Amino acid sequence: MADRTWQVYLSGEIHSDWRERIAAGVREAGLPVEFSAPVTDHAASDDAGAGTLGEQAEPFWRDHLGAGVNAIRTQTLIRAADIVVVRFGDKYRQWNAAFDAGYAAALGTPYVTLHDAEFDHALKEVDRAAQATARTAEQVVAVLRYAIRGELP
Amino acid sequence: MADRTWQVYLSGEIHSDWRERIAAGVREAGLPVEFSAPVTDHAASDDAGAGTLGEQAEPFWRDHLGAGVNAIRTQTLIRAADIVVVRFGDKYRQWNAAFDAGYAAALGTPYVTLHDAEFDHALKEVDRAAQATARTAEQVVAVLRYAIRGELP
Amino acid sequence: MADRTWQVYLSGEIHSDWRERIAAGVREAGLPVEFSAPVTDHAASDDAGAGTLGEQAEPFWRDHLGAGVNAIRTQTLIRAADIVVVRFGDKYRQWNAAFDAGYAAALGTPYVTLHDAEFDHALKEVDRAAQATARTAEQVVAVLRYAIRGELP
Amino acid sequence: MADRTWQVYLSGEIHSDWRERIAAGVREAGLPVEFSAPVTDHAASDDAGAGTLGEQAEPFWRDHLGAGVNAIRTQTLIRAADIVVVRFGDKYRQWNAAFDAGYAAALGTPYVTLHDAEFDHALKEVDRAAQATARTAEQVVAVLRYAIRGELP
Amino acid sequence: MADRTWQVYLSGEIHSDWRERIAAGVREAGLPVEFSAPVTDHAASDDAGAGTLGEQAEPFWRDHLGAGVNAIRTQTLIRAADIVVVRFGDKYRQWNAAFDAGYAAALGTPYVTLHDAEFDHALKEVDRAAQATARTAEQVVAVLRYAIRGELP
Amino acid sequence: MADRTWQVYLSGEIHSDWRERIAAGVREAGLPVEFSAPVTDHAASDDAGAGTLGEQAEPFWRDHLGAGVNAIRTQTLIRAADIVVVRFGDKYRQWNAAFDAGYAAALGTPYVTLHDAEFDHALKEVDRAAQATARTAEQVVAVLRYAIRGELP
Amino acid sequence: MADRTWQVYLSGEIHSDWRERIAAGVREAGLPVEFSAPVTDHAASDDAGAGTLGEQAEPFWRDHLGAGVNAIRTQTLIRAADIVVVRFGDKYRQWNAAFDAGYAAALGTPYVTLHDAEFDHALKEVDRAAQATARTAEQVVAVLRYAIRGELP
Amino acid sequence: MADRTWQVYLSGEIHSDWRERIAAGVREAGLPVEFSAPVTDHAASDDAGAGTLGEQAEPFWRDHLGAGVNAIRTQTLIRAADIVVVRFGDKYRQWNAAFDAGYAAALGTPYVTLHDAEFDHALKEVDRAAQATARTAEQVVAVLRYAIRGELP
Repeated sequence: MADRTWQVYLSGEIHSDWRERIAAGVREAGLPVEFSAPVTDHAASDDAGAGTLGEQAEPFWRDHLGAGVNAIRTQTLIRAADIVVVRFGDKYRQWNAAFDAGYAAALGTPYVTLHDAEFDHALKEVDRAAQATARTAEQVVAVLRYAIRGELP
Repeated sequence: MADRTWQVYLSGEIHSDWRERIAAGVREAGLPVEFSAPVTDHAASDDAGAGTLGEQAEPFWRDHLGAGVNAIRTQTLIRAADIVVVRFGDKYRQWNAAFDAGYAAALGTPYVTLHDAEFDHALKEVDRAAQATARTAEQVVAVLRYAIRGELP
Repeated sequence: MADRTWQVYLSGEIHSDWRERIAAGVREAGLPVEFSAPVTDHAASDDAGAGTLGEQAEPFWRDHLGAGVNAIRTQTLIRAADIVVVRFGDKYRQWNAAFDAGYAAALGTPYVTLHDAEFDHALKEVDRAAQATARTAEQVVAVLRYAIRGELP
Repeated sequence: MADRTWQVYLSGEIHSDWRERIAAGVREAGLPVEFSAPVTDHAASDDAGAGTLGEQAEPFWRDHLGAGVNAIRTQTLIRAADIVVVRFGDKYRQWNAAFDAGYAAALGTPYVTLHDAEFDHALKEVDRAAQATARTAEQVVAVLRYAIRGELP
Repeated sequence: MADRTWQVYLSGEIHSDWRERIAAGVREAGLPVEFSAPVTDHAASDDAGAGTLGEQAEPFWRDHLGAGVNAIRTQTLIRAADIVVVRFGDKYRQWNAAFDAGYAAALGTPYVTLHDAEFDHALKEVDRAAQATARTAEQVVAVLRYAIRGELP
Repeated sequence: MADRTWQVYLSGEIHSDWRERIAAGVREAGLPVEFSAPVTDHAASDDAGAGTLGEQAEPFWRDHLGAGVNAIRTQTLIRAADIVVVRFGDKYRQWNAAFDAGYAAALGTPYVTLHDAEFDHALKEVDRAAQATARTAEQVVAVLRYAIRGELP
Repeated sequence: MADRTWQVYLSGEIHSDWRERIAAGVREAGLPVEFSAPVTDHAASDDAGAGTLGEQAEPFWRDHLGAGVNAIRTQTLIRAADIVVVRFGDKYRQWNAAFDAGYAAALGTPYVTLHDAEFDHALKEVDRAAQATARTAEQVVAVLRYAIRGELP
Repeated sequence: MADRTWQVYLSGEIHSDWRERIAAGVREAGLPVEFSAPVTDHAASDDAGAGTLGEQAEPFWRDHLGAGVNAIRTQTLIRAADIVVVRFGDKYRQWNAAFDAGYAAALGTPYVTLHDAEFDHALKEVDRAAQATARTAEQVVAVLRYAIRGELP
């Protein structure tokens, strides 16, 4: 069988170590995965536009400028992904994570959501269009390991 | 010039009268618009699956069932829409509204966001992929009137 | 809200009256639905090729010829459908029904499966890509009524 | 001429050695082919959801969960395939094999069916949309060898 | 069942009355079909460019100009068609008919070829991608009648 | 043959009467055409954003806002068009006209350019991807008349 | 600038050495090109079906079988091509070459035709949708060299 | 994270050293980027058709021929690009740059415009569909560095 490298995009929350935990689990399992992600340095992400193209007087346009620059990265990487993992944490509203899920759904790219049960009702539409909903980073690793190697924990 | 009827889908918040205000404004202006929307009766929407296909023991699967039935409606109508308006209110997390925005963006369907300035920073990615961000239902009517008739207030 | 006519394609089993029961329920509920379906006369369907283009000596090519003529109808109607309903009965293998489900899935067209619980395990992949799984024609009517009107039984 | 590696996805029956026979024939002929397939360990495939994301009380949802996890693998690999081979054996209904055929057809990916003559009539729609119907694994190897190298047995 | 009007594009040979015979048969059978076709006046078709945009000194560019103007018509109508019928006669090379068949194939639009058996070998690739090959205009009518009404002669 | 209404989008220059001349010629010829166009009132077009969503301090963002609102109209209408006519006049740089041409080309929608010979060299890429290049509004009418009716002047 | 390898598919006539002449010219110029083509051994191509899947009694179905097996190769390679060259010789009708041109046109893949001036009128539609028409293999090499390196003879 | 190579197409003005400055900045920053571009030798670009396929008597057709040959290169490279940068200088009308922007927009490929503030109003539609507007080559490098590495200057 083929020695395919799987492209996995890790969308959403940037304030906990879930990406590192998934990457560590994948490394430990020896899976052929290349990860990509949005810029996860919150301050840098907020300054993506003003820091590259110049400061803006209006906060709305400052954010607009930054979101455009971030989108160059995120849309390119989501389009190149085989699988998207979308994480919803307990802080912030994370509408961009849900936006990425809708974007992946329309492209026909399978995605996995990762969140606590307390958000199940609010995320029901996003979870329904997903191929799986995980509670922990370890479960995401188990899903990737099964999808790639057919092995169960 | 052609007497086109414009299909406009009204996504998002279901707890205020913004849809009615947009519809009233459009009617008053005499614009050729047909509106569509998700089911806006919150209780019915939550029971969409259990009420049609049978009650479920697990809340997660109850929601999952309902989200599937709702998606039959929403995906069909978004795909048929010329323009999507996505409303974010101050209650609930409304991840499904952001999901719809991402879905529309990937389809290449233009959309307009409608929300207060307090959410500007959190919604910057969703606003960036939109063609316009409005603060009031009246502004949405003005945008539709301009887009359809070329008339300004 | 718009007075949309919904296009619903009824795929699969042709040996029971499930299409008529769905049509009757939809008519009773006054839903704006136009139904389409494959040719449901089994003998005519088998003779679709030989009867129009000439008899064939080899059974394989006779079937091949007929399947092509049937596909002119079925592919056109599935592509034009908003929603597909796929019925699996207890007779025959009905691989064409599963084929239609896969075709609809790849097109991004929402579909509903209709079958008894005894086939749940064998149909799990087909059900997973569906937006809903119904047990009775009446449940399909309930789903359509909700999707179109937002009304629950 | 180019030294292309062909991606071939082997869909369907998991209870005989047809995949191994095709792989052996391709190896013997020295063809540049990378194979992919669903998870062919029946027990693991059935536990794909419960084993990675947690046990479920209801059999329907247990299957649903597993089918989603399996789909992450199968949809990714089918989308990446140049050619799909779809095998129908004499046990089980194998609706997922027919689903994969419909999915490939809608994507425009050429596929080859592999089955005994006894299923010709039941599979006529699936065979019609295929580019070839083979009776033996050896015939599939012959088709691949011709398609890749232009050599006949 | 729905009262659909079927769009049928009649491509190819313009020196015999096959279009009229199909139209007459369809009218007699009372089928809901709207036909479209390239411009079938040979002289007008050759002058499509020079007659609208100005005479050209070089024959190559004169033809090029005319082919562009004809393509405005043909590409629009083929894209709008449910079914394409492609006729190959015994005069001229009719490469544009084969071009239309390839174009329809890539769009996923079902097409029917119409030609004598003497061209079977030369047209095998074009026939293979078709859903049916007819010998007479009457057979095309029979195919359309079956596809639309499910009736056999 | 079918009584199709053709959707024609008239893109580009807004300072001469070319749209009116085309419309008059089409009316005179009795062609079944529905025209659409961007907002052709220059002042209204420039105020499309500020006039509907609020004045902006920075000219760049004022234009950005207006261009988004205009794009709701133009992208919707171009996507709905069968044919696009793109006019380049002798004033202004009209980059948006060339943008529309590129957009139509990528969608596979046939378009006709309309400009004087002095711009031939500068517009060679835009003209090459067009199906025809006209010098006068009357020539555009002749092309439409031929494409729709097969009649030459 | 990038060291891209260009994929070029050589479609059409199989009775002269035009493919070898293009390959030799490309090799001499040191261009980074990988060529692909249909099976150019006429006898093997005719036996593609019967030789791999079994002899057929009817010539029509024998050709049909072979055309399907050939299409596995040709459709895969055309879909993977950056550029298609389509050669029309003076023998045979070569409808499959014109079919490939239409297929490439609908995919948006640029193609170059290669034929003598005597076929200009008959090939005008096929040439119009091409990006270039060459008279000799050497001209095709010149076009490829320019497209890849920007160098003129 | 993955060691992706980013494909960046540099469209537009060919009379200043902006491409070299971007390439130098990217090299200095050590970014994994492969650049592509149209042929930037103005004379060669104008002779692309006449120099490869033969001289033409009419200037219009000479340009037409050359634009076709150039399009083989530019359309292939734009389709293969992750990001397009579109430069508008102060000389010439550069309609082909705007055409490329529209083409990229319809494909869903993110692009960055690069031009002086004096063109802001004329380019507002082109800038609106872009993800960013830069004033200097150095800003483009900063945007690429952020998009690829998440680093700000």
